[in-house]
Amino acid sequence: MSQVVVASNRGPVSFSLSDDGALEMRRGGGGLVSGLAGVASGQDVLWVCASLGEADRTAARRAPDGRIDLAGHDTGGAAVRMLDIPAATFHRAYNAVANSTLWFVHHLLYDTPRSPHFDARARRDWQSYEAYNAAFADALARDAAPGAKAAIQDYHLSLAPRMLRDRRPDLRIVHFSHTPWAPPEYFRLLPDDIGAQVLLGILGADHAGFLTERWASAFLDCCEVVLGARVDRAARTVTCGGRTTRVGVHALGVDGTALRERAAQQDVAERARALREQVADRQLIVRIDRTELSKNIVRGLAAYREMLANHPEWHGRVVHLAFAYPSRYDLPEYREYTAAVQRMAKQIAEEFGTATWEPLILQVNDDYPRSLAAYGLADVLLVNPIRDGMNLVAKEGPVLSERGCALVLSREAGAAAELSDDALVVNPYDVSQTAEALHQGLLMPRDQRAERCARLVSAATALPPQRWFADQLAALD
Amino acid sequence: MSQVVVASNRGPVSFSLSDDGALEMRRGGGGLVSGLAGVASGQDVLWVCASLGEADRTAARRAPDGRIDLAGHDTGGAAVRMLDIPAATFHRAYNAVANSTLWFVHHLLYDTPRSPHFDARARRDWQSYEAYNAAFADALARDAAPGAKAAIQDYHLSLAPRMLRDRRPDLRIVHFSHTPWAPPEYFRLLPDDIGAQVLLGILGADHAGFLTERWASAFLDCCEVVLGARVDRAARTVTCGGRTTRVGVHALGVDGTALRERAAQQDVAERARALREQVADRQLIVRIDRTELSKNIVRGLAAYREMLANHPEWHGRVVHLAFAYPSRYDLPEYREYTAAVQRMAKQIAEEFGTATWEPLILQVNDDYPRSLAAYGLADVLLVNPIRDGMNLVAKEGPVLSERGCALVLSREAGAAAELSDDALVVNPYDVSQTAEALHQGLLMPRDQRAERCARLVSAATALPPQRWFADQLAALD
Repeated sequence: MSQVVVASNRGPVSFSLSDDGALEMRRGGGGLVSGLAGVASGQDVLWVCASLGEADRTAARRAPDGRIDLAGHDTGGAAVRMLDIPAATFHRAYNAVANSTLWFVHHLLYDTPRSPHFDARARRDWQSYEAYNAAFADALARDAAPGAKAAIQDYHLSLAPRMLRDRRPDLRIVHFSHTPWAPPEYFRLLPDDIGAQVLLGILGADHAGFLTERWASAFLDCCEVVLGARVDRAARTVTCGGRTTRVGVHALGVDGTALRERAAQQDVAERARALREQVADRQLIVRIDRTELSKNIVRGLAAYREMLANHPEWHGRVVHLAFAYPSRYDLPEYREYTAAVQRMAKQIAEEFGTATWEPLILQVNDDYPRSLAAYGLADVLLVNPIRDGMNLVAKEGPVLSERGCALVLSREAGAAAELSDDALVVNPYDVSQTAEALHQGLLMPRDQRAERCARLVSAATALPPQRWFADQLAALD
Repeated sequence: MSQVVVASNRGPVSFSLSDDGALEMRRGGGGLVSGLAGVASGQDVLWVCASLGEADRTAARRAPDGRIDLAGHDTGGAAVRMLDIPAATFHRAYNAVANSTLWFVHHLLYDTPRSPHFDARARRDWQSYEAYNAAFADALARDAAPGAKAAIQDYHLSLAPRMLRDRRPDLRIVHFSHTPWAPPEYFRLLPDDIGAQVLLGILGADHAGFLTERWASAFLDCCEVVLGARVDRAARTVTCGGRTTRVGVHALGVDGTALRERAAQQDVAERARALREQVADRQLIVRIDRTELSKNIVRGLAAYREMLANHPEWHGRVVHLAFAYPSRYDLPEYREYTAAVQRMAKQIAEEFGTATWEPLILQVNDDYPRSLAAYGLADVLLVNPIRDGMNLVAKEGPVLSERGCALVLSREAGAAAELSDDALVVNPYDVSQTAEALHQGLLMPRDQRAERCARLVSAATALPPQRWFADQLAALD
């Protein structure tokens, strides 16, 4: 029985099987793992996650009582329980509901005349999502010590807080949303019963956390409009069915020290050398994203193209390095989007490329040290999502920038709440405005860039993951 | 110089050229023409509209001073000025901006990962929209008598109120929006300057009218969030730049008497006879729409299909008559959508059709008397738009229903504000819920159907077009 239980779809580690059948463990990335490392030491912490492959399942089976002990690892020493969720259930809960429905709703991604399409099949998918959430609630209920704190993460687990409360009324529960939250007029796309369950699920927590004021406020709006709940905006509370849930804003920043240490390693230096040769004395515009519909890569490339068309003085004098590594390739929308990115890249190469100048380098394989090297060399960092819970690229880039980069930042990224004073803020649908911001970023005098960048670094590192996660737990005291 | 000037893209009449070169005039449909007929008599009214073809231009050139006199016609006797807007300007203003941008924003129709895409071309289109609005403002400014009332209609002319105020501060100006209004989180998709111009354009009016409280409220939200204007919700006013605009709600209903008179004509009776033969003793589900992305025809057909799959007792006992006549075929999205409607219809025919039963009749040619006949015979009327300013089908159908039809109605139609008590209200994205509502509609006892339908008729005819339009003008007193 643990004093702190954490739940998220993806755990702090994953396993693979080596050729000789031995289990190999890999630490995951992301703010949550770092955050947990800061609080776990000295407490008995259990992290519940889903098994994402056969090796994870094997590791879970081999561990005593299914608890994988991470003592001595840099995850802060939590134990991990990897749930063995049936493949069909997992697929429907994760792909069909979480990533193709809730993600789409909160990021306003639907092509509304055609989708969503909530038919009998969608109801079956929803039942799997309920089963998936119930599996987490069962595990948390079993493993949590009396009066323990439970920290449930993200849109995969929006029903779990209420399910856990039903099973264990003694626990103190926080739910944290890493995504944006949809406005009521868009949240209403969900079937009435499903929309209500999502909201009531989260309201099963004592505290519901969001990355920005804007997403917290949208959640309050949905509770008021969709559920008819009583919302106190000054106190930031929602009262529904006799219970009151507090709503809080906990921004997530980067751990500057850890990031700089990682970037100082040899593999990054090697990539930086290769990149410097490629770019030579040209200015460098960098973007780093998963090929995710919300990341707005096509419009970003189109903006670069419009800048080259409007400002021929940059021909031969700038390179755009665009990292767009594969994501959610199970979903046809994502495969189509990847193809659209590649088409746009080809157009730019054909329109502007010369024998001596490659205007765009599109990098589709995920190479973390290369990304870190690119941060170091960027003159302009482009972060233009159509909607984003926070966006850590916008925070990591300035931290690693060697000579102070200009940041072109979408106002629809959560990070804009903290960084907009020193970024070139754009409407992500406005390709012309984005083109002009890239041009301004390239033109910005070095000293102005450096000053702005220094302030961006302060803002970006103000709330490192350790503090962010500690805040979530402290909100339960 | 006229005491009342009206402006809308499409006028009360249109012209065609007969084989011998003579001009033939046809009266247009829609609430505005009927509305004007009620107030025009006795006043000097001029209606400014765009010439929509060569015959319109010819008529305008032949008319003395360009004013086409309609005295003695059933349009209430207004004179008409048809503006000769250059074809390229008209195309960009009407198709690219009004119908592909503003319409999409207000109906939440964008496939956001891909569109909108506001690039250099979009700016050029916007300049044409400005020029189109300026042409209307010029004509209104020239023709309005001192202190006259100007009634400017819809999203094609959102800039004209302010442009007219600049030219003629003495006028009293009302703007009326026939569409829904987007929530701020979606309105923000527009480039900042364009979004601000749309709002400021309408705020050039003394009074801004909307079809429902919901759209009026969304407009107030946009003024507050996007412009930072001062909004008084109790008084329903917006103050911006020292001027105050009142916002009003004016629902639009149908003229029951005129509609019944039209439906009593011979051509309708003939169609009714043919339909009765086709349907025989089966129950009849009817929908009547333009093939418009917002009308949600594909999900409507899918709901019918799911009902047939879930309730085989209806096989052979029900027919769905779906009118889906062509609309905006200039736009590729609309051609694709039409193809999707036809694919879904084909699937239903293949899945359920038998030698003796055609479960679905999809009618793609626009035949107004046939639509009126179908209203008369419908057991269930399906109106399921994903978003709709008002939707007059939901009001016309009950008025002409011979034995009291059940109305399955989207909660996202403006009409739901008045009709939801007696309709079967559905979430238009929820195909399963819509399927179940169709089933409930078919099952509803005749007397209950008739009672509900009678109340629907009262609500639908409470505010006929004459009163709706008179209210707009009265709001300027």
